[in-house]
Amino acid sequence: MIDPSRYPHLSRIQTPADLRQFGEDQLPAIAEELRGYLIESVGRSGGHFGAGLGVIELTVALHYLYDTPRDRLVWDVGHQCYPHKILTGRRDQIHTVKQADGVAPFPKREESEYDTFGVGHSSTSISAALGMAIALAQAGDERKVVAVIGDGAMTAGMAFEALNHAGGMEPEPNLLVVLNDNQMSISENVGGLTKLLGRMSSSRTLNSLREGGKKLLGDKRKPPARFMRRWEEHWKGMFVPSTLFEQMGFHYTGPIDGNDVTALVNAMKVLKTLKGPQLLHIMTTKGKGYELAEGDQIGYHAVGPFDPQKGLVSKTGARKPTYTDIFSDWLCDMAAADPKLLGITPAMREGSGLVRFSKKYPDRYFDVAIAEQHAVTLAAGMACEGSKPVVAIYSTFLQRGYDQLVHDVAIQQLDVLFAIDRGGVVGPDGATHAGNLDLSYLRCVPHMVVMAPADENECRQMLSTGFKYQGPAAVRYPRGTGPGVTPAADLQTLPIGQAQTRLQGSRVAILAFGSTVAAAEDVGRDLGLTVVNMRFVKPLDRALILQLAQSHQGLVTVEDNVVMGGAGSGVAELLNQAGVQAPILHLGLPDEFQRHASREQLLAEAGIDAAGIRAAILKRWPQLAAVPGQIAAG
Amino acid sequence: MIDPSRYPHLSRIQTPADLRQFGEDQLPAIAEELRGYLIESVGRSGGHFGAGLGVIELTVALHYLYDTPRDRLVWDVGHQCYPHKILTGRRDQIHTVKQADGVAPFPKREESEYDTFGVGHSSTSISAALGMAIALAQAGDERKVVAVIGDGAMTAGMAFEALNHAGGMEPEPNLLVVLNDNQMSISENVGGLTKLLGRMSSSRTLNSLREGGKKLLGDKRKPPARFMRRWEEHWKGMFVPSTLFEQMGFHYTGPIDGNDVTALVNAMKVLKTLKGPQLLHIMTTKGKGYELAEGDQIGYHAVGPFDPQKGLVSKTGARKPTYTDIFSDWLCDMAAADPKLLGITPAMREGSGLVRFSKKYPDRYFDVAIAEQHAVTLAAGMACEGSKPVVAIYSTFLQRGYDQLVHDVAIQQLDVLFAIDRGGVVGPDGATHAGNLDLSYLRCVPHMVVMAPADENECRQMLSTGFKYQGPAAVRYPRGTGPGVTPAADLQTLPIGQAQTRLQGSRVAILAFGSTVAAAEDVGRDLGLTVVNMRFVKPLDRALILQLAQSHQGLVTVEDNVVMGGAGSGVAELLNQAGVQAPILHLGLPDEFQRHASREQLLAEAGIDAAGIRAAILKRWPQLAAVPGQIAAG
Repeated sequence: MIDPSRYPHLSRIQTPADLRQFGEDQLPAIAEELRGYLIESVGRSGGHFGAGLGVIELTVALHYLYDTPRDRLVWDVGHQCYPHKILTGRRDQIHTVKQADGVAPFPKREESEYDTFGVGHSSTSISAALGMAIALAQAGDERKVVAVIGDGAMTAGMAFEALNHAGGMEPEPNLLVVLNDNQMSISENVGGLTKLLGRMSSSRTLNSLREGGKKLLGDKRKPPARFMRRWEEHWKGMFVPSTLFEQMGFHYTGPIDGNDVTALVNAMKVLKTLKGPQLLHIMTTKGKGYELAEGDQIGYHAVGPFDPQKGLVSKTGARKPTYTDIFSDWLCDMAAADPKLLGITPAMREGSGLVRFSKKYPDRYFDVAIAEQHAVTLAAGMACEGSKPVVAIYSTFLQRGYDQLVHDVAIQQLDVLFAIDRGGVVGPDGATHAGNLDLSYLRCVPHMVVMAPADENECRQMLSTGFKYQGPAAVRYPRGTGPGVTPAADLQTLPIGQAQTRLQGSRVAILAFGSTVAAAEDVGRDLGLTVVNMRFVKPLDRALILQLAQSHQGLVTVEDNVVMGGAGSGVAELLNQAGVQAPILHLGLPDEFQRHASREQLLAEAGIDAAGIRAAILKRWPQLAAVPGQIAAG
Repeated sequence: MIDPSRYPHLSRIQTPADLRQFGEDQLPAIAEELRGYLIESVGRSGGHFGAGLGVIELTVALHYLYDTPRDRLVWDVGHQCYPHKILTGRRDQIHTVKQADGVAPFPKREESEYDTFGVGHSSTSISAALGMAIALAQAGDERKVVAVIGDGAMTAGMAFEALNHAGGMEPEPNLLVVLNDNQMSISENVGGLTKLLGRMSSSRTLNSLREGGKKLLGDKRKPPARFMRRWEEHWKGMFVPSTLFEQMGFHYTGPIDGNDVTALVNAMKVLKTLKGPQLLHIMTTKGKGYELAEGDQIGYHAVGPFDPQKGLVSKTGARKPTYTDIFSDWLCDMAAADPKLLGITPAMREGSGLVRFSKKYPDRYFDVAIAEQHAVTLAAGMACEGSKPVVAIYSTFLQRGYDQLVHDVAIQQLDVLFAIDRGGVVGPDGATHAGNLDLSYLRCVPHMVVMAPADENECRQMLSTGFKYQGPAAVRYPRGTGPGVTPAADLQTLPIGQAQTRLQGSRVAILAFGSTVAAAEDVGRDLGLTVVNMRFVKPLDRALILQLAQSHQGLVTVEDNVVMGGAGSGVAELLNQAGVQAPILHLGLPDEFQRHASREQLLAEAGIDAAGIRAAILKRWPQLAAVPGQIAAG
């Protein structure tokens, strides 16, 4: 429970209605308490950190001025929603964030009426808010709609599409877009837009303007609307004669200091009275108010539990390498071996493991901003001229580049390697970040080679295989660590479409894909069953599957992908096509979006950990329990 | 063969090398011949028309000045590539366009070395060209790269992503983007960008500038670079002080008259010498030089064969309604019945059948420009506030909104109806426009209801069903006409997940999906087999499938989707999950991208017309040929 002696204001705020009981002059104090409480609670729980600290004042100002939840407040990405959650009834639960049955790390409609739109991927807020504004206007409902979007998210084409639509609409939609500009998304921002915003708001100019703005706003004798107008004219006259946003049809206000709650309230009071599409450009500091986070904005983007007095402490001792680390090392090694390799990331340098590559090969490293569509077709263009592009991308974000994968890469059979991280169950980030669908949506695409490694060494081999293969290929590996097989130093490849028998047992054969192989092997060893590491989702090892179907009473497919259209489904298609009948048990992820919980929990809930696989097999074939079969090593 | 008396220049041009033998002063005459030849040949063959006429001069100028195919010329969408194909070795085959084994209607790498990047969907050119420019720079290769993109294609987020990346890159990429601005894509353009371009180049201003430009350029005494500089300064000073493109980091030139080949050649001569990202803004008239097409740019976008002397003639007599017509009527009828219905199209008003709706319900009609990502999330936002959005979209273009369908609609179970036109085999437009994958990529998404109608009346019923259903639903129907079942006037719904037995036969049951039902019924009647119109791809009719598996020797699934992960695969999963074994034959589209040919040809090649289905069944079960079974009507 919150300590009223340390949080005299915040302890009295359960919902925004409580917040609105305070005077404007108390908002700075409330913001400070909210910041302290956030630092304390994220220190306990871990979670997204820097983004929330940056929008403390904005969150207070929005809930103070707007009649939430009636007015519609739409957050983009949602990394920054913790202060919002604290102010909207979830103060005392925020320390459970990301845990199973705890608070979700992103806005979620099921969780609260204050979460108007669920999110996790970036750049959806303007589209969603515009949709809401249109629907409300249709119903003659005057409620306000506000979208908050970061400068990083603004680089995505989707945000541009929404701006273009909103700015050109007639009648004009009533919509406020707050551009939260911290010159930073998860990595550093890149691109022409970022440069433009940088020019518009370089810190020296901004500071002088802040002073000017404060002076004007400080004068209480004149009505605020006139101040605002003059203030704007003043600023715009000086250095933003014609912005991108005005050209797109938005009325532009800013930039103002988004970490100054009084300035925000004053600006937004005026904006609330205006009709048409409005854009408020605010400057904030990611990690604001926690010195260590301000100094290391990437490091403090998302954190594990830590002591706020000490900050993040590097773990000592050898850390078990994650699949991301395996990719990272492979990328540098292959780049050394083949000068044609180029590396592409859509704004996920850290998450996808490209930091070392970007430093070692800056000329061959391409961070294209949050722009998955462009990332994929850029790679296609590179491949046309003889480069060998590697697109490093999260499974869930590849959904954004799906058409480009089909239309630009696969149809043309171009030589692009997709290194797909966070495939399958992801865990604490919830359904929006799950990689549960990729094998299904990739397997149906002609010309694709799709691989899923059983361990770290195989991941490296598959990356080399996909890279050397002339055509589109994908290696899809899970979040976190694997069974711990140290990769060989060389860049060995695997034969395309060839599975690996791990255990030669009898009666039932388990055909396991990717990260489920280890658990399948445990079960197989226990029950004396054959276990095959399938390695290739596409093409499948046809000869082996047919042989297994003939020599066993039944087949079990296991994968960390939905069963619907997944790898196991491919095995069934193959047998049906061959006219071979065999009892098949498909194990995989359910036909539902999984809740947020640990990866291990979700694998267990889906029944694809060792216990689940064992139980499902024995349920189908109870007789297997009686006498274990004979195992010969594969 | 081309007639040299009518085409004295063009008849001597097989490739751009021949073109380059002529003097600059002959280019206008060549352009005129090319225009006449295009009108003549498209009159014979049908095909995309207006876009090609608009870029005659640009095509001539590009191939004249650039060393194609060494220099890389990338077309966007590709509607406009016919003049390019005529000048690059395909002059005498252009009348075979869209036919099987004929010239492809879009650039295609396999077809010609002059087609540097295959295309069909819009807005890929800048990404692809930038990728090429990067790859060439990596190799120290000085070849030029030019992308040609229309103003319509520029509204897509993907183009913005590419501009943002190119404009912010260091070192600067050497790349020319030609913005072909005809204020028109397939429909009229919409959005803030369109308004901006309109302001930049309103015809009165443009004309006065053209005159100014000509005067300056006409003076041959000074070196062209200085002219260009002055010319630009003159123009920019007058009305484009700071354009969107300059703000994004591109060096902007224009607008110039893109139907004036001399002006184009002069401008591009200068641009060829410049480094860094260049944008040349040209103004053209879609349909240029063919009066009827200039006057009806939408009607002449793509045409069937016609007599150029007479123009397009409306067909008399009752035309059999297409599925698009069925949707069109349903949309108006349902809009009349439910004021909450809102209709969304990403720039496909005509193709998707929203013309009548847009006129009857202008306030409820939303053309969001070529912006599939935004279209889907806009609908999600609308649904949050109680509207009932219908997203009308082509199957192949929904690939662009896949992440939004998953992340914004399906996870949140929002009440959005997807009316998916051109599902399955599309035909003459080739692989880029095929809808062969949609059942696979939709079926794996939790919460989706996916329907495929067997006939026109059922299409209408399914649209009503999806609309009334509270949650995400998709109705996926094919291009063209169906079996000809007149829809009932009412807005009747179907029970979710319930199939319809069409023929009660014996031995083998055919489970047919969507447009394959009619052919399946023919075969079933012939061989005395059971035939079921499955109606729902998801959820499947579990009870019926289990019952059919028990009562028949084998099941056949038929669908106009790839077998990989398709509807039939869902039937196999269901049986495996139930532990029921039945011989299954999956018929559907192959695991390859189909060539361009008529829809009927492609269905036949895939073996899912009546002859193909019959042959496949008899191959698997030869004994069925001997004695037909007994049929009772379903």
